[in-house]
Amino acid sequence: MTDQVSRIAERIPADFGEVIRTRRSVRHYDPHFVLSREEIRSLIADAVLAPSSNNLQPWRFLVIDRKEDKEKLYPIANSQKQVLEASATIAVLGDLEGYKRVKEINRIAVERGYMTGEFAAQQAERLLASYGARSEDALRRIVLIDGSLAAMQLMLAARARGLDTVPMGGFDHERFIEAFRVPATYVPIMLIAVGKAAAEGRPTARLPVDDVTVWGSF
Amino acid sequence: MTDQVSRIAERIPADFGEVIRTRRSVRHYDPHFVLSREEIRSLIADAVLAPSSNNLQPWRFLVIDRKEDKEKLYPIANSQKQVLEASATIAVLGDLEGYKRVKEINRIAVERGYMTGEFAAQQAERLLASYGARSEDALRRIVLIDGSLAAMQLMLAARARGLDTVPMGGFDHERFIEAFRVPATYVPIMLIAVGKAAAEGRPTARLPVDDVTVWGSF
Repeated sequence: MTDQVSRIAERIPADFGEVIRTRRSVRHYDPHFVLSREEIRSLIADAVLAPSSNNLQPWRFLVIDRKEDKEKLYPIANSQKQVLEASATIAVLGDLEGYKRVKEINRIAVERGYMTGEFAAQQAERLLASYGARSEDALRRIVLIDGSLAAMQLMLAARARGLDTVPMGGFDHERFIEAFRVPATYVPIMLIAVGKAAAEGRPTARLPVDDVTVWGSF
Repeated sequence: MTDQVSRIAERIPADFGEVIRTRRSVRHYDPHFVLSREEIRSLIADAVLAPSSNNLQPWRFLVIDRKEDKEKLYPIANSQKQVLEASATIAVLGDLEGYKRVKEINRIAVERGYMTGEFAAQQAERLLASYGARSEDALRRIVLIDGSLAAMQLMLAARARGLDTVPMGGFDHERFIEAFRVPATYVPIMLIAVGKAAAEGRPTARLPVDDVTVWGSF
């Protein structure tokens, strides 16, 4: 059987409501379905449109799409079969020192006319000082939140292209860091398998809105 | 001037790509624009379609939509004007003991035919034991991630209805917990102001995909 190669570089016009209602965690994938790196890049390009604390974008993505890397990840990810069968698994990481790229980000903003050079320089100094003074715990909290915002958008971007995903929190962080030589300042947040579903995801129940919502004050 | 009342109970058909490309953090809101509680419920209903660790849905929402509550929040949220001017600010919280509602969740799943009663009972016991054995740190990590996934979906759901949002991480957590009598097991994750933009959000720069993506291994 020859590999199918997807043709989804362009986003399928997709209704937002349909995207969020049809996204389910899918655990069975067509192992012959190949996502090109260009297509994976387009998913990440959508994901990084998410907001982040002071727009510092501490999210980082490690894409595991080759057979040998999937096999290396498989035992580390509790032998979940989707790691082998999905087209790729994208590890979402948070860089505790991501804020140090603020000048790089602001340079782009200045080039595009989004901020003046003077504002960019002052803001960079201010953020470097304030983030530099934060505890590792406080930084960890921020990158977990920001990385998760991008992760959600990535899963929806996949669904909007007719692809499916499953987020995985259950994996051995220590072994993952060692096996994939993850830099010391990077915190693993979650793994997201992405590909073409071989079997539908199972529907899941939700608590009613009124059971998770309080008005005004507790 | 009479208050405008929004008529957005039904989602505006919205293209997913347009939703993510037009979502920007908006800091100036029309203070006369009223969102009904039914409309806010519909945003939260969309948000909770997000995935969560073992579908345990530890996200909780505190909706601050009355004048007196906005005024109470204002100084706690660093006097950011959107707290007063937006239709509402939704505090996204994570319940460290949220997993204890697994039987409630599974009861709904059984009623809908998503799982058998036997599976539901066994799975609930397994999850109660495994989450009960986790450290507070581990649980905090999980609820931060899950709450952030729902937060992202909430911001997009607002945009799909022609509304705007701004996530706020900068607020005094201690004072917030005290002022709004937040239960001891709840962790504040972020505040999201939501309403009708009075001025467009400013465009922001993003690091190129290739600068935040690694293939195969570091």
